[in-house]
Amino acid sequence: MYPVSFIKLIEAFRKLPQVGAKAAERYAFAILQMSNQEVQDLIDSIAKAKEAVKSCSVCFHLCEEDTCVICQDQQRDSEIICVVNSSRDVIAMENTRQFNGLYHVLNGEISPAKGIMPEDLTIKELLDRLDGGVKEVIIATNSTVDGETTALYLSKVIKTKNIPVSRLAHGIPMGGQLDYADELTLAKAIEGRIKY
Amino acid sequence: MYPVSFIKLIEAFRKLPQVGAKAAERYAFAILQMSNQEVQDLIDSIAKAKEAVKSCSVCFHLCEEDTCVICQDQQRDSEIICVVNSSRDVIAMENTRQFNGLYHVLNGEISPAKGIMPEDLTIKELLDRLDGGVKEVIIATNSTVDGETTALYLSKVIKTKNIPVSRLAHGIPMGGQLDYADELTLAKAIEGRIKY
Repeated sequence: MYPVSFIKLIEAFRKLPQVGAKAAERYAFAILQMSNQEVQDLIDSIAKAKEAVKSCSVCFHLCEEDTCVICQDQQRDSEIICVVNSSRDVIAMENTRQFNGLYHVLNGEISPAKGIMPEDLTIKELLDRLDGGVKEVIIATNSTVDGETTALYLSKVIKTKNIPVSRLAHGIPMGGQLDYADELTLAKAIEGRIKY
Repeated sequence: MYPVSFIKLIEAFRKLPQVGAKAAERYAFAILQMSNQEVQDLIDSIAKAKEAVKSCSVCFHLCEEDTCVICQDQQRDSEIICVVNSSRDVIAMENTRQFNGLYHVLNGEISPAKGIMPEDLTIKELLDRLDGGVKEVIIATNSTVDGETTALYLSKVIKTKNIPVSRLAHGIPMGGQLDYADELTLAKAIEGRIKY
């Protein structure tokens, strides 16, 4: 009983990830309530991002030019590469301000269950980069089954090139309580304990 | 560290209701992953709905012409008007298939706390409609403080026109358990009990 164009708008919003019927309806009503200028701004933002955003030809992080701002930055240490699953993880790492090397975005994780094999990721491109004087690779994939599988695979392949490989530490999250940590996390925290 | 156009897209999505930073980022990534055609479809849906969807000049439900499909339908009983808060509620009522009259969308509820007074709603237009041979008004505002305030106000104003006014029944939701119902709902259910 909604007008056709309104139903079509709801359906269009439902194609966004994790948007159900109620949320899509809410967004559609919001569009009607926005000013024409605000709606035009939203449309322009979508069109502009879709047109302008590309993958960095070196590290596959999002960028608008041929290479991303991180790869372009001469101040960064090009001898250390941090391997991550997605561009989101690059931002998470950058927010720590603890890492001054370069990145490599895999665009996914190895997952036999989902049919994602090493050749579906940017692993070949990573290995090509390693021949250019890289001194350390930090593997920062997720601490999930797929993330660990990917880390294990990468560590084996990279070691054949005689380049040191490290993995982000597991342990108690900062501010976390010991009795709330799961057994596996606690076991990893004991195993990886650090001397004062 | 995201490209400028990508950050702008995230900000644009954040203007939608109840969309936080994480959801907006997820939608922005989804736009990059969609095909050009899918993105164009989304843009077209937004533009088309914004341009085409209007308010019915009679009942204020959403429509694409001067009057909505419900007001245009000659099969419907124009002597009964159901008063609701929003177009969403029209759809909820229609889904029951129990009501064959017309609607009147208030576009909100009286709320002294939020500064919404009767003159901010479509109450004047409702009263004008009542002079055209309406035999019953069903008030179907929400069962919240503002909804009840609106219902009370409307019932007083409409009664001065000697038109019968009714209100949706309160009671135990279908499938609901008695011991989970709050006291007020249970009290209303006792008060409104129906003879077998």
